[in-house]
Amino acid sequence: MMKIEHIGIAVKDLNVSNDLMHKLLGKPAYKEETVEGESVKTSFFEIGESKIELLEAMNFDSAIAKYLDKNREGIHHIAFAVDDMETEIQRLKNEGFQFINEIPKKGADNKMVVFLHPKSTNGVLVELCSERK
Amino acid sequence: MMKIEHIGIAVKDLNVSNDLMHKLLGKPAYKEETVEGESVKTSFFEIGESKIELLEAMNFDSAIAKYLDKNREGIHHIAFAVDDMETEIQRLKNEGFQFINEIPKKGADNKMVVFLHPKSTNGVLVELCSERK
Repeated sequence: MMKIEHIGIAVKDLNVSNDLMHKLLGKPAYKEETVEGESVKTSFFEIGESKIELLEAMNFDSAIAKYLDKNREGIHHIAFAVDDMETEIQRLKNEGFQFINEIPKKGADNKMVVFLHPKSTNGVLVELCSERK
Repeated sequence: MMKIEHIGIAVKDLNVSNDLMHKLLGKPAYKEETVEGESVKTSFFEIGESKIELLEAMNFDSAIAKYLDKNREGIHHIAFAVDDMETEIQRLKNEGFQFINEIPKKGADNKMVVFLHPKSTNGVLVELCSERK
């Protein structure tokens, strides 16, 4: 675990929240990106060595749509940057953590990502991500 | 806004969650600290330029106890490091953000802190913090 890569925030309306986050952080999103595999539209803001990722559902099947059915807008996940994904997955499995997906899949921002189940991580949805090669 | 100073996670049992976070991040808390004014016990973990802060309520009046009455354990707030607190408060007031407290109060880790109301920040409880002088 090298750093907080980003904090993911589930929002209903990306445009509205882009404006809000621009005002809060004092600078605009540096990019928007659609992740088809997750059915989400995302935007990214730089903050130090980390990022804020806003996530809007593209359809009802999106995990973000399901999240917002049960929860208010707010922090959805924390993503940690890892150097060697395979080693880190094995280390965390040995420690007893449960994964939502153990096989890295394509995330936004040119990353490969896995998610740990919040049941095993104090209610926090944890993402591990590494640069896509 | 300079960086993510820390992410605060509300937990029921600090000892249990210290063990869990140690396993997740691969290193132990570097300190524990009681914040009497907030009635919380905290522990801190380093991750890159940021920290993870675990928060356990010391009594029923603690904001963390009230939070855990309504919510599961999980991410409670994001704290951003600011250089000039007064300037940043004024900037955000001008942008229309609502504050829970506008007058900085003592937080953990030798910080002065203010909180923005989640109603005005996409459901995210935002803390601003600066070094205590």
